Amino acid sequence: MVLSLELASRILGYEPSRAEAEALEAARIAVTDTLAVTLLGAFDATTRILSQTPGIADGDGPCVVAGTSLKRSLLDATLLNGVASHAQDFDDFAQEFGGHPSVPVLPPLLALADTRKVSGRDLLRAFVVGVEAETRIAAGVHFHHYEKGWHPTATLGVFGAAAASAYLMGLSEKQTATALCIAASLASGIKANFGTMTKPLHVGHCARNGLFAALLAESGFSASLSAFEAPQGFLNVFNGPGRYRVERMLEPWFRPPVILEPGISIKQFPCCGSTHPAIYVALDLRRDHPFDVGDISEIEIRTHPLRLPHTDNPNPESPLRAKFSIQYCVARALASGDVSLADFEVARIRDPEVQRLMAATTAVPDAAYAGDKSRAFGASVAVTLTDDTRLEGRVAQRAGRGRDDPMSTQELKAKFEDCATSALSAARTAALWELLLKLDELADVRELTRALAAELPIARAAGA
Amino acid sequence: MVLSLELASRILGYEPSRAEAEALEAARIAVTDTLAVTLLGAFDATTRILSQTPGIADGDGPCVVAGTSLKRSLLDATLLNGVASHAQDFDDFAQEFGGHPSVPVLPPLLALADTRKVSGRDLLRAFVVGVEAETRIAAGVHFHHYEKGWHPTATLGVFGAAAASAYLMGLSEKQTATALCIAASLASGIKANFGTMTKPLHVGHCARNGLFAALLAESGFSASLSAFEAPQGFLNVFNGPGRYRVERMLEPWFRPPVILEPGISIKQFPCCGSTHPAIYVALDLRRDHPFDVGDISEIEIRTHPLRLPHTDNPNPESPLRAKFSIQYCVARALASGDVSLADFEVARIRDPEVQRLMAATTAVPDAAYAGDKSRAFGASVAVTLTDDTRLEGRVAQRAGRGRDDPMSTQELKAKFEDCATSALSAARTAALWELLLKLDELADVRELTRALAAELPIARAAGA
Repeated sequence: MVLSLELASRILGYEPSRAEAEALEAARIAVTDTLAVTLLGAFDATTRILSQTPGIADGDGPCVVAGTSLKRSLLDATLLNGVASHAQDFDDFAQEFGGHPSVPVLPPLLALADTRKVSGRDLLRAFVVGVEAETRIAAGVHFHHYEKGWHPTATLGVFGAAAASAYLMGLSEKQTATALCIAASLASGIKANFGTMTKPLHVGHCARNGLFAALLAESGFSASLSAFEAPQGFLNVFNGPGRYRVERMLEPWFRPPVILEPGISIKQFPCCGSTHPAIYVALDLRRDHPFDVGDISEIEIRTHPLRLPHTDNPNPESPLRAKFSIQYCVARALASGDVSLADFEVARIRDPEVQRLMAATTAVPDAAYAGDKSRAFGASVAVTLTDDTRLEGRVAQRAGRGRDDPMSTQELKAKFEDCATSALSAARTAALWELLLKLDELADVRELTRALAAELPIARAAGA
Repeated sequence: MVLSLELASRILGYEPSRAEAEALEAARIAVTDTLAVTLLGAFDATTRILSQTPGIADGDGPCVVAGTSLKRSLLDATLLNGVASHAQDFDDFAQEFGGHPSVPVLPPLLALADTRKVSGRDLLRAFVVGVEAETRIAAGVHFHHYEKGWHPTATLGVFGAAAASAYLMGLSEKQTATALCIAASLASGIKANFGTMTKPLHVGHCARNGLFAALLAESGFSASLSAFEAPQGFLNVFNGPGRYRVERMLEPWFRPPVILEPGISIKQFPCCGSTHPAIYVALDLRRDHPFDVGDISEIEIRTHPLRLPHTDNPNPESPLRAKFSIQYCVARALASGDVSLADFEVARIRDPEVQRLMAATTAVPDAAYAGDKSRAFGASVAVTLTDDTRLEGRVAQRAGRGRDDPMSTQELKAKFEDCATSALSAARTAALWELLLKLDELADVRELTRALAAELPIARAAGA
């Protein structure tokens, strides 16, 4: 058994099934939400600095950089769109993947669509395949892979990017396996850089590397087909001997597709998904108990232990840090009754009321959740008021808006408009939304990439 | 103590000392030998496929791709020169680094010299700094890092590339630390891909990523300055808790510079360094015992256990595999009395006499060497003849031609000419050699990069 060939045969084996219409609709929603956050991130400082860095700044190409007038090479456009898509950490996520499934997969497909004729349905199918591949590989290495400190969106997303690209490009089984094995040598990204610009860089870098691996494999580049299971291969080197289960990767694929079951969770709040359970509890507390925020004397947050190492930031000073601060997110939810894009501007973070609440907050891992995977996104929040009233709430498991609790079309559209209008006019945003509603019927995805391009160079827009 | 800042202050703290002339001369020799093998690799299939891959093929830039008429961006020229430099695995190595110290460091410096005025001495100093940085970091993580399956040339070379770039670019201490911390998230490369085109790709990729990290840090991109020592930082994620020693990284730097002590070993044979000890023994046996090769009935190779996992290839079918086949290299040395570039052409690998010798070969790790670092490049070879004569030889420690056993100027020049003439005319090769003799006095390295450029696009040359 050669694992890369087994994976390749499953990647290329995706066939339309009775569930396909439903799978393509789930993919369409994920693509729509991912494009919204990509447009939001187009003028983020992270994307702007990257786009102006020598080696990236130079060189026109055939591929649209969303929200801008830039056109770049296949690889550089993928890098820039990938970084933009995660710059605000507002993109979707999936617990089983241990990260953000859409952002590694979509940018390579968009760039490829600018260099060869791709229909909307081709793109959606390749997207379904990419999400399936990265999630099935994740099933074999998690959650040891996550707990060790790898950033799965990057270290596993690179395989989603390679798989989706290989499927769309029509690579052979051996070429697809080779692409995965090249990708195994390009996989990188550590969680220590969470909360900095390097986290979104991980995403652009893995999306670029996955596509790069597929292009190299198509060109005849070689890799060892045993690069996963070899003694010094991906599994042993990244996870360690005995810390992975190959058989879990090989359980039947697409029955139903991962994008349907367990599905993808759309983010309602523009901050790290690990803060969301506590935010929901805080919002419920505020709704159910009409207390005065000024009367809060103490806040105690308890979360599943997995949620806290990267979100325990008691005094965030930058917007990026605040997105990884469970203290800020809960304080803001209690103070405002919402957590929105505008809440991550510096002035809002420095708001004295919220600063006071953060200083009164403790955040601790709750041993009661540990070892219970079904409560991995569980949290409780207890608020003590100056009169010693103690209000407490908890959720056993709630993070993004997924299969059991989907966002309505109206909610999705509202988020789409909030995000996309940071790069496009209201009229173009509305036209883009309409186009995306019919993505499955689009004959040529270049119609979509044209609609993503804007008049603004990144430099000019960033000054605005 | 913030490790990245400690490292940065040492990188920027390099000052000319009494040993400097000697250090710069050692650097000059390493640079000369690295440029020779880069020109050799310019038209290798690995480099050619890469250079023609979409995303890399497109886009002119200011930086020379050695041996060709191509000019590319800072990043793409670094990638291509890095891949070319390691394409034939004929570049220098160092045991303490656990890999190839020069190839990650030189390509970024050459590319930078095409975009800003850099003197020969500036380049040599930055080279000394890059080698120092990657080797000192290696001291803290080896040899667990190597034994686990990481490819140190790539996973540690990325820091050499970042450090040398930061030094040459004149970054601040914080920017230099940031570059190292970004590089920690881009570090990748597993040994399972040894013996394929993906191994040289590791080198170009890490050289590019190290420079990329420095350029991003210069532009204001952020990373976590604790990305080395954090719980989910480079040291814990790549090596594992308790499997590294920070204090070893912080022992005094440049006293004397690593490039002088322990120094760099130049490769005399164009194959994996792990095969060299056994080749030396085989050549000595042949020289000292004038037997008939046709009379060999059995060959037994014993090596330090570290040398064998990636060189135990009893029946290599491609030139690349043959370079990682201790069986082929020893058989060839016994059959020809030399191991040269021409010996890795397919017809030579298929030579029936050598095929017969390989079939009669066993290669085993020798437990007697294990645990003895001073014998890490030790090997023995025993040859049994048809009349049952048994000839045996061994070396305790010998690999490249390093400090204790340096190649003569004449030997270096012979290797230089052999390699460089694969891309340049004999007259230009001779002029380049002369230019490199005075590299320390060169006012502008662009004179050197012009001398590296040739009339040939890679595609045309590859057909020749």
